[in-house]
Amino acid sequence: MDKILKINQTIQSYYQEGAVSPDLSQALLYSLEAGGKRIRPILLLQILEGFGLSLTVSHYQVAASVELIHTGSLVHDDLPAMDDDDYRRGQLTSHKRFDEATAILVGDSLFLDAFGLLAAADLPEKTKLSLIYELSAAAGSCGMVGGQMLDLKGEKRQLKLSELQAVHANKTGKLLAFPFVAAGLIVDAENDVQAKLAKAGSLTGLAFQVRDDILDVTADFAEIGKTPQKDLAAEKATYPSLLGLDQSYRILEETLAEVQTIFSNLEEKNGFAASQVLKTIERLKLDG
Amino acid sequence: MDKILKINQTIQSYYQEGAVSPDLSQALLYSLEAGGKRIRPILLLQILEGFGLSLTVSHYQVAASVELIHTGSLVHDDLPAMDDDDYRRGQLTSHKRFDEATAILVGDSLFLDAFGLLAAADLPEKTKLSLIYELSAAAGSCGMVGGQMLDLKGEKRQLKLSELQAVHANKTGKLLAFPFVAAGLIVDAENDVQAKLAKAGSLTGLAFQVRDDILDVTADFAEIGKTPQKDLAAEKATYPSLLGLDQSYRILEETLAEVQTIFSNLEEKNGFAASQVLKTIERLKLDG
Repeated sequence: MDKILKINQTIQSYYQEGAVSPDLSQALLYSLEAGGKRIRPILLLQILEGFGLSLTVSHYQVAASVELIHTGSLVHDDLPAMDDDDYRRGQLTSHKRFDEATAILVGDSLFLDAFGLLAAADLPEKTKLSLIYELSAAAGSCGMVGGQMLDLKGEKRQLKLSELQAVHANKTGKLLAFPFVAAGLIVDAENDVQAKLAKAGSLTGLAFQVRDDILDVTADFAEIGKTPQKDLAAEKATYPSLLGLDQSYRILEETLAEVQTIFSNLEEKNGFAASQVLKTIERLKLDG
Repeated sequence: MDKILKINQTIQSYYQEGAVSPDLSQALLYSLEAGGKRIRPILLLQILEGFGLSLTVSHYQVAASVELIHTGSLVHDDLPAMDDDDYRRGQLTSHKRFDEATAILVGDSLFLDAFGLLAAADLPEKTKLSLIYELSAAAGSCGMVGGQMLDLKGEKRQLKLSELQAVHANKTGKLLAFPFVAAGLIVDAENDVQAKLAKAGSLTGLAFQVRDDILDVTADFAEIGKTPQKDLAAEKATYPSLLGLDQSYRILEETLAEVQTIFSNLEEKNGFAASQVLKTIERLKLDG
């Protein structure tokens, strides 16, 4: 897919300029090129195109910045002190391929570099500052990292559904909602459109986590590229463990349907061309 | 000192708003309030005052943002996979007081939150974007983290002086130079003034590292609040190990004198009021 290629090129060119440590660059590209599906960047780019924009280098830089943060979080999540995973996307995790210190520094770099990439993009100053603010809020202690801490603290006990939802909304939801919010900022959308995008983003985040929970139970290594049934083994609260598999499939389906409704509504009312995004959302479905 | 109090208040108020995880907030404040000397924020604020500015909340926010990044780097540097330190500033390190996963997330939060704090400051958009770009470049793979990787890779062999300088310039130098560069951006300094500030910043970074190397050899636990002679025990290349203690003292003194000359020159030629900054630089001296 053309977009994935260009996202990868954007990331590579960013990391080929003036590396202080070639060892670090190698480890950064190892994780960045590990065959991620680039779902966050693609959603951003497809929504921009839905609004009629021709994609520019800057749009790809914004797309790459969220992928840097996402990849950094995976590298740290896999560390022995965290989820202790040996494989990710079918290849050795950073700390297994290199060492723990390298994996820590890879994540740190990705978190710190993402904002420089955004700040340098050729977009209006106001837009860039909003993007930086939103990305920081989605990723840091008010978002992804805060949710990761809730998750760790919750591992020792059975969570209620509302607690599980709070974990997910922060740990996965906010960064997955970022591409939707970012697209609205880039096209300078009206408040009502921006609100619809934010809603679609947080629902997609929910769907993604339910899907991940289901796949942990049902998929094998080849399908998900990492050790399956880890949540089960850790007796971790998940949608299937709290609500059963059937109900989890139903929630996934209903949530994705709601996202599709929002985009169809944007098409009707706001002249948004929804077909690309709808296809991407459709692909998130699983057969129950 | 009044400035330290206000820096601390700025940090605290940032972390008291809407925490996702109270456990994470507690761990963040534990490291942030560990009695750091706040040298980077103070230098920024003193340079701003030297240019005649009355300090505002926004200036304190910029000052706090570099302290977040600095503290995050210390928390990660202390991890078992990195320098494996049990004490920092006389108190248990984050992973000893809490656990490794928490310490990883504390560092991650500090790196990610710093940019949101900058983006929200009440300063001109152009200035904020330059500050964000410079902070990212000073801290990420092109700066501090890149230097940390060079340092790790160099531990297994005896470095040449030029290699040691490259480690220091990146690992410590660039983030220490940030307050100087940031002050120039905030006052919108002419190019020649900005160049002088950048030079003073990188010299101060060098002085800081030489000083740290000397203290590792000469100081006891009470003076530096962490385990002394760790570099010595690790047979790590340092200024004293490569050049001897006497020569290291001389380099420190000469470097700080050069910084003072730059600021005296700014006073003469550019109406800069140098007395506060000169006092801070003076305090970095050690008696040989």
